[in-house]
Amino acid sequence: MTPTHSIQASIVRKRDGHSLDRNEIDAWIRGVADGTVPEYQSAALLMAIFVRGMSREETVALTEALLRSGRVLDWKGVGRPTVDKHSTGGVGDKVSIALAPWVAACGAIVPMLAGRGLGHTGGTLDKLEAIPGFRTRLSAADFEAQVRRVGVAIAGQSDDLAPADGALYALRDATGTVESIPLIVSSIVSKKVASGAAGIVFDVKCGAGAFVRTREQAVLLARELLDVTRAMGRNARALVTAMDQPLGAAIGNANETVEAIDVLHRRAPADLTALTRTLGAAMLVMAGIARERHEAEARLDRALELGEALRCAERFIQAQGGDPRVVTDPAQLPRARTETKVTAPRGGTVSAVDGGALGHLLVAMGGGRRTKEDTVDASVGIRLLRKVGDPVAAGEPMALIEAHRDAPDWAAVAAAAYSIGDQRVEPPTQVLEDLAT
Amino acid sequence: MTPTHSIQASIVRKRDGHSLDRNEIDAWIRGVADGTVPEYQSAALLMAIFVRGMSREETVALTEALLRSGRVLDWKGVGRPTVDKHSTGGVGDKVSIALAPWVAACGAIVPMLAGRGLGHTGGTLDKLEAIPGFRTRLSAADFEAQVRRVGVAIAGQSDDLAPADGALYALRDATGTVESIPLIVSSIVSKKVASGAAGIVFDVKCGAGAFVRTREQAVLLARELLDVTRAMGRNARALVTAMDQPLGAAIGNANETVEAIDVLHRRAPADLTALTRTLGAAMLVMAGIARERHEAEARLDRALELGEALRCAERFIQAQGGDPRVVTDPAQLPRARTETKVTAPRGGTVSAVDGGALGHLLVAMGGGRRTKEDTVDASVGIRLLRKVGDPVAAGEPMALIEAHRDAPDWAAVAAAAYSIGDQRVEPPTQVLEDLAT
Repeated sequence: MTPTHSIQASIVRKRDGHSLDRNEIDAWIRGVADGTVPEYQSAALLMAIFVRGMSREETVALTEALLRSGRVLDWKGVGRPTVDKHSTGGVGDKVSIALAPWVAACGAIVPMLAGRGLGHTGGTLDKLEAIPGFRTRLSAADFEAQVRRVGVAIAGQSDDLAPADGALYALRDATGTVESIPLIVSSIVSKKVASGAAGIVFDVKCGAGAFVRTREQAVLLARELLDVTRAMGRNARALVTAMDQPLGAAIGNANETVEAIDVLHRRAPADLTALTRTLGAAMLVMAGIARERHEAEARLDRALELGEALRCAERFIQAQGGDPRVVTDPAQLPRARTETKVTAPRGGTVSAVDGGALGHLLVAMGGGRRTKEDTVDASVGIRLLRKVGDPVAAGEPMALIEAHRDAPDWAAVAAAAYSIGDQRVEPPTQVLEDLAT
Repeated sequence: MTPTHSIQASIVRKRDGHSLDRNEIDAWIRGVADGTVPEYQSAALLMAIFVRGMSREETVALTEALLRSGRVLDWKGVGRPTVDKHSTGGVGDKVSIALAPWVAACGAIVPMLAGRGLGHTGGTLDKLEAIPGFRTRLSAADFEAQVRRVGVAIAGQSDDLAPADGALYALRDATGTVESIPLIVSSIVSKKVASGAAGIVFDVKCGAGAFVRTREQAVLLARELLDVTRAMGRNARALVTAMDQPLGAAIGNANETVEAIDVLHRRAPADLTALTRTLGAAMLVMAGIARERHEAEARLDRALELGEALRCAERFIQAQGGDPRVVTDPAQLPRARTETKVTAPRGGTVSAVDGGALGHLLVAMGGGRRTKEDTVDASVGIRLLRKVGDPVAAGEPMALIEAHRDAPDWAAVAAAAYSIGDQRVEPPTQVLEDLAT
């Protein structure tokens, strides 16, 4: 394919640290969408952007160009407020599966497009696919019809929403240009705006188990998500939340889906329930269903007490072809045959649980993906019996490896992910920052 | 094409400022040569190298890998010392056309591979092709046979010498990654070493009409060329020479070839003759034909006096299919029909002649290339009647535009390339640095 001279000039400008103007960015993304800009020129430009960064104006222009490459869903006439949530992802983050039907049960419309797992972090679509029959691939028409009828759908990105982002993302993955704030922000915001919700709550994960390690970096990313989403005419709020250890007790696809449903049964681990409730309250306030946090939490609590959230979960699972019995009977989900105990090498207090290491272990067990072509085994998993701040005695089980064979090797890897000390440790704070404005 | 995971890891390492090891560089260039590394991954890696740079060890490893992608010419048994010259290029640099047969006439073997012009700098091959019948595309066998028989050949890069460099160069051109010292050095040295000369003299141009603008940058590039060539087991010497104004009086393909031959007739402009003689002396000393500069210059002068250099030029032009009569009768070369005077707007002393501006003017006149696909008109040109340090009276001609029509528009552009002041100006020093060790 012949190189494009105007793109070459843009590459040189970005390479030398200059800003690209709106016309240059539009021309590039149009060329990505219609295939006239060769991939090698986009790859060079992505690397230049990775190294030199982008201004707020450039990031907004890139987001708009990506959005314009496809259609934008429109919920006019749906009669209820629309709201969405996006998490930057971390080990054990199964929040969306409980949150979306819970918030929908309180009267909001939740048109949620989700992703798959890659590397050490899982993906909501993989978790939902553990439910027998569940379809994550919906046509745009089916997605829209279900959202209007049930109030909620969780599906994969359809090809006609921000298609240029799909092409760029594949290139970024192959060219070492994933972890760039302007590229991450424009990719996330263009997709979220394309799915049409009037407001978006961002959960920016921060810590050893997340892409962003430091609080400063997380605040930077959260601020950029917030401002770019607002520049696109949508409401936005961003929480920065701790992801030093996995969220909840379950890691794996089927067992995380069970644990998410447990939130709606009021029997899930406290940290998972608390974060889901906090995000749900932010969504209800944003949607105008509650005036402030306490009123929103009261509404959420009532939806659990009355069983409205469970019934919404059943309807949403059934609407997407899944077996709704999983909501009351988790035995319908696939399950690994054996449990291998991960025992404490010494007594003391758990001071850290390395989520990244456990995420990589799940991949090694077949429960995650090394490359996009890998298939995942939904039934394998890791169950944490002890978390940060918990006391443990020497020889006591700290976790279980759920697999198809006795797995002392994997148990040893899981044990190494635990740090045990002599000092008392407070359980970590969950919400580190709340950027409402 | 599927991305290569090991290349992705190398991209990330270079992106983050780490060094690549020899195995990584070898794997990349093997993949470039056999087409298994997709161009988008090479493009991202080239941009990362452009921005982060390469250590001396990395540049040597890249040069060796490029060299290994093809064959290396071997002059064993040729019975005479082999020596070559490479110039980084500038406006009016027609040195090679005189230098190669001159040095060959003194007893060295000169197997010279040259390039074409692109943008504001011309190329030796384009200039030679102004000679009726001259072929610059020789098979490797014809090139070798001619060098052994005549002592000199000047031809285009054949496909089997450093072929991976050809692929990378095309990508660099399209992705804004040309002007990087490690990429430039590995590209030049791999090709020069592949053509098999035991020693190489580099002419690194420096100033307004060259790629490198400052003396510091030029010394850096010269030092890198020197050290990498030596690391490849060849002798090397590098001169840094001034390229603030064009070299000689002629700019254009046919008229530069005439002016180069004029060097051998002892009737060329002094600056062109002096630089050609200086580079020739360095080559003769490197080849061991002379012990030191004065002896070498005496040998070169004798070759002019005895007509040996002219006869060698005739033999070499004839061997490549060209009409040897051009050596004694320049009327055999194509010539534009009209001359438009470029007159001085005021009197004074010429203080600068902007070679870059005149190079771009030649492209606009059809005598150079904007893109690699353009054809060039060998007959058009610019002739400088005044250069830096020359006095000029108001209304006097400073230059001539040689074209196919009266060209007051082009004359105005050429006039603007001249600066005229009231102060006396010394003609610029030619050789700024001589890096022999």
